[in-house]
Amino acid sequence: MRKINSIRASVKVAVTILLIMTMSNAIAQNKKQMVRMALIEIDPGQVDKYKAAVKEVGETSLRTEPGVLMLYSVADKLKPNQVTVMEIYADSAAYEAHRQTAHFKKYKEVTKGMVKSLQLLDVDLIFAGIKPDAIPR
Amino acid sequence: MRKINSIRASVKVAVTILLIMTMSNAIAQNKKQMVRMALIEIDPGQVDKYKAAVKEVGETSLRTEPGVLMLYSVADKLKPNQVTVMEIYADSAAYEAHRQTAHFKKYKEVTKGMVKSLQLLDVDLIFAGIKPDAIPR
Repeated sequence: MRKINSIRASVKVAVTILLIMTMSNAIAQNKKQMVRMALIEIDPGQVDKYKAAVKEVGETSLRTEPGVLMLYSVADKLKPNQVTVMEIYADSAAYEAHRQTAHFKKYKEVTKGMVKSLQLLDVDLIFAGIKPDAIPR
Repeated sequence: MRKINSIRASVKVAVTILLIMTMSNAIAQNKKQMVRMALIEIDPGQVDKYKAAVKEVGETSLRTEPGVLMLYSVADKLKPNQVTVMEIYADSAAYEAHRQTAHFKKYKEVTKGMVKSLQLLDVDLIFAGIKPDAIPR
């Protein structure tokens, strides 16, 4: 049992080191990748419903679409109806495919009465680094 | 040689699955974490110098500060002097410690003539998921 725990601990350390090596390096953006930012204003009365919908489409997209590489959404603490979403797709084809999925269409349908304004910006990645602890268990 | 390649492939698959399991889950933000967003307007003539400085402080912070969990910065494609930075710190103490480091003070000093305006927002994480391919090698 002690041996299994020690193996487990070693694997954990190795995976952590690998993660940090792979992901904490700042490297220029892969030229094919499509990096976007969405500025979304939600109807203040429907913020919780919107958050549930954006979480659901995010989870499904990451689980089922190989070309969806990162999704990250936040709400302003002082104005919780101001939402910002960061997105990285493998390439523009992956982004187009994402827009055609049933889960994305459902998200658009469900949230159309919640979204007051939507601004989509194409952006260039300057720097990105993440550690495993960033996204809590 | 074929055996080594097959072991390598298996390790790669295992690490990828682990990463996706660990990081692609949408889970409520760890209450202690401090999640921030900075909206920065750069002097249009100094964008490249600013990008180099933000990359340098980002790399050093992630490498040397355990409490700096994520840094992600992008520049608008149409207005490259409009920069957005997303930050996750383990807690507010980690954020305060970050501001006292030599590399952060150097970054503030070097960039003070480049930054035209800076808006810091405290935000709540709604959803975050990332795959290993998101940050290119």
